[in-house]
Amino acid sequence: MDEFQFKQVIAVRRDLEMGKGKTAVQVAHAAVSAAEEARKRFTNWWETWMREGQCKVAVRVGSEEEIFQLERKSRELRLPLALIRDRGLTQIEPGTTTCLGIGPAPSSVIDTLTGNLSLL
Amino acid sequence: MDEFQFKQVIAVRRDLEMGKGKTAVQVAHAAVSAAEEARKRFTNWWETWMREGQCKVAVRVGSEEEIFQLERKSRELRLPLALIRDRGLTQIEPGTTTCLGIGPAPSSVIDTLTGNLSLL
Repeated sequence: MDEFQFKQVIAVRRDLEMGKGKTAVQVAHAAVSAAEEARKRFTNWWETWMREGQCKVAVRVGSEEEIFQLERKSRELRLPLALIRDRGLTQIEPGTTTCLGIGPAPSSVIDTLTGNLSLL
Repeated sequence: MDEFQFKQVIAVRRDLEMGKGKTAVQVAHAAVSAAEEARKRFTNWWETWMREGQCKVAVRVGSEEEIFQLERKSRELRLPLALIRDRGLTQIEPGTTTCLGIGPAPSSVIDTLTGNLSLL
């Protein structure tokens, strides 16, 4: 996907074993919230990403600790992000961290954080 | 989920048998695009929905025709929406309609369209 100058990556905990619908909604929360962060703080990134067709990639992580590590690294790079905690009405405990949305941001920057992760 | 005055519903084709990651990314495309429509055209709806915590519900439909029917009904009600066609780089043919995001819009209105659909 080299034609995408900007991308958004959503890292999802696979250890929670959420179903397909639950996973999709959590990823959508992360996508909307991180995109809104970008729209407010990095408007040019957001605009280019929207124009390019909103490249999104969902990747898997194995634990909450991995999510927090990614969050710390993303904050160090000052990237727009959204950490999603579930209300826990279905399937999992309230307050459980389910996923992290990073970007939209330059693909070359995001890849340094998530390029080694497997697709969800 | 009566505490949510506004909601977004994403209708997903189950007949395509997309995997968990593919499904999640398609739903996220619909969520971001429909939310952006709402932000531009129905700013008050969007703001309230964001403040309420972005209620999203993913539901299943069985065919492309069902998606198109929902789209027509949503347009008749002038609801914000986003029909998602996949680039078809993975798993499915290019241009395949995968899902439809409707809203955020008043829950009472959306429920008249999608209240009878099963959760994804």
